Amino acid sequence: MSLPRKVRLVEVGPRDGLQNEAQPISVADKVRLVDDLTDAGVGYIEVGSFVSPKWVPQMAGSAEVFAGIRQRAGVTYAALAPNLRGFEDAVAAGVKEVAVFAAATEAFSQRNINCSVSESLMRFEPIMDAARSHGVRVRGYVSCVLGCPYEGTVKAEQVAPVARALHDMGCYEVSLGDTIGTGTAGDTRRLFEVVSAQVPREQLAGHFHDTYGQALANVYASLMEGIAVFDSSVAGLGGCPYAKGATGNIATEDVLYLLQGLGIDTGIDLDKLVDAGLRISEVLGRATGSRVARARSAR
Amino acid sequence: MSLPRKVRLVEVGPRDGLQNEAQPISVADKVRLVDDLTDAGVGYIEVGSFVSPKWVPQMAGSAEVFAGIRQRAGVTYAALAPNLRGFEDAVAAGVKEVAVFAAATEAFSQRNINCSVSESLMRFEPIMDAARSHGVRVRGYVSCVLGCPYEGTVKAEQVAPVARALHDMGCYEVSLGDTIGTGTAGDTRRLFEVVSAQVPREQLAGHFHDTYGQALANVYASLMEGIAVFDSSVAGLGGCPYAKGATGNIATEDVLYLLQGLGIDTGIDLDKLVDAGLRISEVLGRATGSRVARARSAR
Repeated sequence: MSLPRKVRLVEVGPRDGLQNEAQPISVADKVRLVDDLTDAGVGYIEVGSFVSPKWVPQMAGSAEVFAGIRQRAGVTYAALAPNLRGFEDAVAAGVKEVAVFAAATEAFSQRNINCSVSESLMRFEPIMDAARSHGVRVRGYVSCVLGCPYEGTVKAEQVAPVARALHDMGCYEVSLGDTIGTGTAGDTRRLFEVVSAQVPREQLAGHFHDTYGQALANVYASLMEGIAVFDSSVAGLGGCPYAKGATGNIATEDVLYLLQGLGIDTGIDLDKLVDAGLRISEVLGRATGSRVARARSAR
Repeated sequence: MSLPRKVRLVEVGPRDGLQNEAQPISVADKVRLVDDLTDAGVGYIEVGSFVSPKWVPQMAGSAEVFAGIRQRAGVTYAALAPNLRGFEDAVAAGVKEVAVFAAATEAFSQRNINCSVSESLMRFEPIMDAARSHGVRVRGYVSCVLGCPYEGTVKAEQVAPVARALHDMGCYEVSLGDTIGTGTAGDTRRLFEVVSAQVPREQLAGHFHDTYGQALANVYASLMEGIAVFDSSVAGLGGCPYAKGATGNIATEDVLYLLQGLGIDTGIDLDKLVDAGLRISEVLGRATGSRVARARSAR
């Protein structure tokens, strides 16, 4: 199978990234980050999460962030909406696309959102109904697709029905997340091989964490399976490379560098992206998690 | 092409790695590192370099290191021998295998070893002759195979004749090094495609640096080209991830983790390898450059 000619990068830094950073940042700094990403040509930005600030204090002020950003035509500005209340808040903030997430394993689902996998899927039904009536698109995430902190290795056959359920209930795309970063390239290929029998490849995305250094090899393996959408986080936000046990989001700069080397079009300007990542890293007072950004800064 | 079933990892940490670390370490610590690697099941260790300590102070005492290590039967303990004087010192120290290196580009050759590529190859002739008469095997390195700090992008067609010359003069294996780490997976595949028309694949190795985060994806790309020998550096020695402009040797632990995930045999014990890397990192007073080691330490 030949590699895709175009790839869409889903920038999760402002949400998945900042949510997992130790310190909260201001609404103004979040707005600046999203605007910088827009200026760099990023076509899809997960801006925030409409969830109780009691649970995720870093995501407080998502409505203010949406109100403050400059929205460029053709760019998707999405938000996580874990429940109907969150969905309604998102719609009130003018959000046109939301994301929901389920886990591939029962243990992770129970410990993370306190219900079984099938219960979590049922809870999305009212969101899907509301989304249809508001003309809002819904993207689905499946976590722990290659490994679970409680159950260990996860089989592709366990992931496929969850991805299928999200697809069947109306998610236009399902992103498969290696949440703990333990997956390797061969398992990644097999994952997409098995899941694509249930959900068309064009509606699948890959979301890799670099905890074990495997993320970019997994992206390359996915490309060979015809996958053309990847989630990534500018500056590797969400996985500080210096912290013990960091979850390690793959850095958008490093994925983009690979894609450019392969001659695959994304519409993103690497120089501007690197600058956006260096700026937010400075705000957070930490080094960038992107090796491309580090190498370029050192020149 | 199916992936190789077995891979040989050439451990370059004690030489290429330590040579590029800021501070020198004692002979005793080097001996301990090599012994730890032997105990972990590593089958090939580049122990030191027989070069004037005026030029590379970190490599002083290579003879003492060779005298101090426990040599396990079946394991190769090699040394770099940049000239005949170095070769003779290596033989006097009991070394049975040496390595020589050439560059793929004229500019790098001139600035690094002060002569043209063809001159450097000619200088190896007396080493090759002496090696034959002493029954010493010679491995060849080609640097800058995917990019040069002075010439930029390097074409595979420029690398092939240098690799071929080393092979023709008697190097039993030629390792292709992406010295500045700028190469991406597609170029890596093409490199081996082109060079293997001149040198059999079974006599080629890959040597990748992670400066731009691409090293492991390049290893995976090479495996798909049938390459079954890779150079790597325990704890990512030689490319401190925290230093600006680090050259970034790929960490052996991270390569091994990938290979284990692919079901490829190397004979190496990952736990012991991780311990060896953590110990030398402590000696150097810096964090390990292996993400696998970091993730395991954080558990």
